[in-house]
Amino acid sequence: MGKVLFNISVSLDGFVAGPHDEVDELFRWYNSGDTEVLFPGPNMIFKVSQASANLFRETWPRIGAIVTGRRNFDIAKAWGGHPPLDVPHFVVTHTIPQAWVKPGSPFTFVTDGVTSAVAQAKQAAGDQDVSVSSPSVMQQCLQAGLLDELHLDLVPILLGAGIRLFDHLGTNQIELENMGAIEGTGVTHLRFRVVK
Amino acid sequence: MGKVLFNISVSLDGFVAGPHDEVDELFRWYNSGDTEVLFPGPNMIFKVSQASANLFRETWPRIGAIVTGRRNFDIAKAWGGHPPLDVPHFVVTHTIPQAWVKPGSPFTFVTDGVTSAVAQAKQAAGDQDVSVSSPSVMQQCLQAGLLDELHLDLVPILLGAGIRLFDHLGTNQIELENMGAIEGTGVTHLRFRVVK
Repeated sequence: MGKVLFNISVSLDGFVAGPHDEVDELFRWYNSGDTEVLFPGPNMIFKVSQASANLFRETWPRIGAIVTGRRNFDIAKAWGGHPPLDVPHFVVTHTIPQAWVKPGSPFTFVTDGVTSAVAQAKQAAGDQDVSVSSPSVMQQCLQAGLLDELHLDLVPILLGAGIRLFDHLGTNQIELENMGAIEGTGVTHLRFRVVK
Repeated sequence: MGKVLFNISVSLDGFVAGPHDEVDELFRWYNSGDTEVLFPGPNMIFKVSQASANLFRETWPRIGAIVTGRRNFDIAKAWGGHPPLDVPHFVVTHTIPQAWVKPGSPFTFVTDGVTSAVAQAKQAAGDQDVSVSSPSVMQQCLQAGLLDELHLDLVPILLGAGIRLFDHLGTNQIELENMGAIEGTGVTHLRFRVVK
């Protein structure tokens, strides 16, 4: 059985985007190193440190399904029908965008919540991992005890304002375990196991 | 000339204390390892990992003065007149607590702001470092361009609520440079240089 993990680039002050959804500063490290890695889906080439490249190459091939949120889906304009990773995508939403319900669509729309979306994604992923790719869905997964690991790409900048990664978590403390820190160029990769 | 640095234990979601100033979870790592380190002032013994102990032994002896805030001073009840590190303390405050203005007091009360407090602390520290030890004073130092380094002891827990480390910073982005990540037991030490 694979794991359910969440990975995102985040500023040191905890923002995953600026006040107007800006993410340029948070993705600078994708072009800050000497080692080229080919992101599988859209054939994008990143130039990162060797350490970051190793991590990419270890993580990406293990992702068998993605759970995301409707806001992410809309902001990305459904990735034009071709999301970066060519795996089944489960989109948590209240209303189904009928235009994307068609044969060959990588999207399954889930209207009965994150628990259902994660269960369907696990089924689709089989032995591979499920990647959660929306902060709000991640928050709901954390609260529901569905998340196994948090992988943060910590970017050395203070944005001052924007969309917070950890928000609406309630006041129940959630214990984590350090899985290690890996220093890249312009980024520190931090991985944590969620204690259940 | 020494540096102006800020060091604190912080949860992964960016809190330096719980909603009622609780810090127990954030200081667990002080007693989570096998290596004993003697904190110089009050002869407290911490048991930390070898990596954390090395960092302590490198950092503490270099601190020549401390800048703190009035709230911190009051919460600590002036450390009974004997703050952990036996160096001059500069307390940023609006009103001077006259009981602590006396010969031999380690405290100098500064009523004309952080820039003045840091200048006085640098003078007192000489070649040694100035340690800022209050989040709100740190925030003001950051905004005034007075801070050289941020040293965060990142604790693997999500508190969900409390006192945020990075708050009231305005929306001007502040660039940092990674100085390295050191993995301890129950903590990850992250150090950043403030780009000026």
